[in-house]
Amino acid sequence: MPDKSNDAHIVQRFDRELEGVRSNVLAMGGIVEQQLSDALQAMADCDADLAERTATNDYKVNRMEVQIDESCTRILALRQPTASDLRLVLSVAKIIADLERIGDEAERIALFVTRIARANCNRRHYTELLHMGTLVKDMLHNALDAFARMDARQAVEVARMDEKVDAEYEAHMRQTMTYMMEDPRNIPPFLDSVWCARSLERIGDRSRNLCEYVIYLVKGKDVRHTTLAQMEEVAR
Amino acid sequence: MPDKSNDAHIVQRFDRELEGVRSNVLAMGGIVEQQLSDALQAMADCDADLAERTATNDYKVNRMEVQIDESCTRILALRQPTASDLRLVLSVAKIIADLERIGDEAERIALFVTRIARANCNRRHYTELLHMGTLVKDMLHNALDAFARMDARQAVEVARMDEKVDAEYEAHMRQTMTYMMEDPRNIPPFLDSVWCARSLERIGDRSRNLCEYVIYLVKGKDVRHTTLAQMEEVAR
Repeated sequence: MPDKSNDAHIVQRFDRELEGVRSNVLAMGGIVEQQLSDALQAMADCDADLAERTATNDYKVNRMEVQIDESCTRILALRQPTASDLRLVLSVAKIIADLERIGDEAERIALFVTRIARANCNRRHYTELLHMGTLVKDMLHNALDAFARMDARQAVEVARMDEKVDAEYEAHMRQTMTYMMEDPRNIPPFLDSVWCARSLERIGDRSRNLCEYVIYLVKGKDVRHTTLAQMEEVAR
Repeated sequence: MPDKSNDAHIVQRFDRELEGVRSNVLAMGGIVEQQLSDALQAMADCDADLAERTATNDYKVNRMEVQIDESCTRILALRQPTASDLRLVLSVAKIIADLERIGDEAERIALFVTRIARANCNRRHYTELLHMGTLVKDMLHNALDAFARMDARQAVEVARMDEKVDAEYEAHMRQTMTYMMEDPRNIPPFLDSVWCARSLERIGDRSRNLCEYVIYLVKGKDVRHTTLAQMEEVAR
């Protein structure tokens, strides 16, 4: 039955293509994680060189986004996937867009750290930021892990962490405002720390987005713009 | 020939579906434009009520995003479009994601304006912001117009405007930093104006993204992460 074996061959090739896309997404995620991790390390060590290297590495992430997007388009055009295969391709298209923007935020942080480290580096400005950075790094890592393991429950757990990040961000902003009002000479360095905090908060939001796509992928339900409780309901 | 007329019927229905998606995107764009316009009007008039109404209207945009996204998925699953039809569906999926986030930024501006208008409203803080706001509003409007008319050249013109917005943003930030250092009591209101400026700058970036999707749609080339000159080359 040559026809059937030919069909099986096509199915296998299709599965390999999908698997390739999936592992490329994880590779892209790994690079973005490293970018964030390096930006935070540069902040902790006041290391302008590491910060600058991190900022210039962003082109790799951009290139991967375009490549994976092309693979998705090719699969849609040639394989015309349906059901869960279609959901995988559509989720991937969204995931890489958010990953690319997480990379942009990491680049932004690295650029501020470059400036901070070249001017004056007062660790007092950045201790709380680093704590927030660790939280956000965990969020991103666990979101990618939930995607790798197709784990909707873990995705909800990550989304829950975003509330903690938002609370830390608010506290940081209030604290920073007080420092700036105490002594106007503090304004420029603290304003840089405000931008870093803002970027970290955005990375938290985007990691939450990743979790929403994982839930869509696993459960077939769009949970964007829903509450954490509704998300939990769907993931159960 | 009943078969042929049946085929023609299916093609017509498909065209109507695509046309429906296109006009829904334009309707969603119209709502987002209005949101931004209202937020800026509230800023100009120190109108806390208008600002609050604008912020609470964001759910409409979110709902439209989910609906249009569902239409796109349905079309991909049932019609399995190829070539320019596939490009339209994929561009729309990206366009609505950016439109939704432009809506979020407009909501953010409206929330800051609510706070500003309720506390003390010193127009001196916001004159330059309003100028930047007008530029950004034009960018968004022209980007949507380029999509409506499938005009790649106009898309490049809009992308070019983003450089002007970025320059205004930088100037605003330098100016604001000076004001804050002059008198620490200026810090809280100026920090709010910094956030508004940041949101406007982001809307400019996202309107530029819209233009990139229009060029992809019309020319079939992915121009993300390219320079303005490269974009021009493709759109010619």
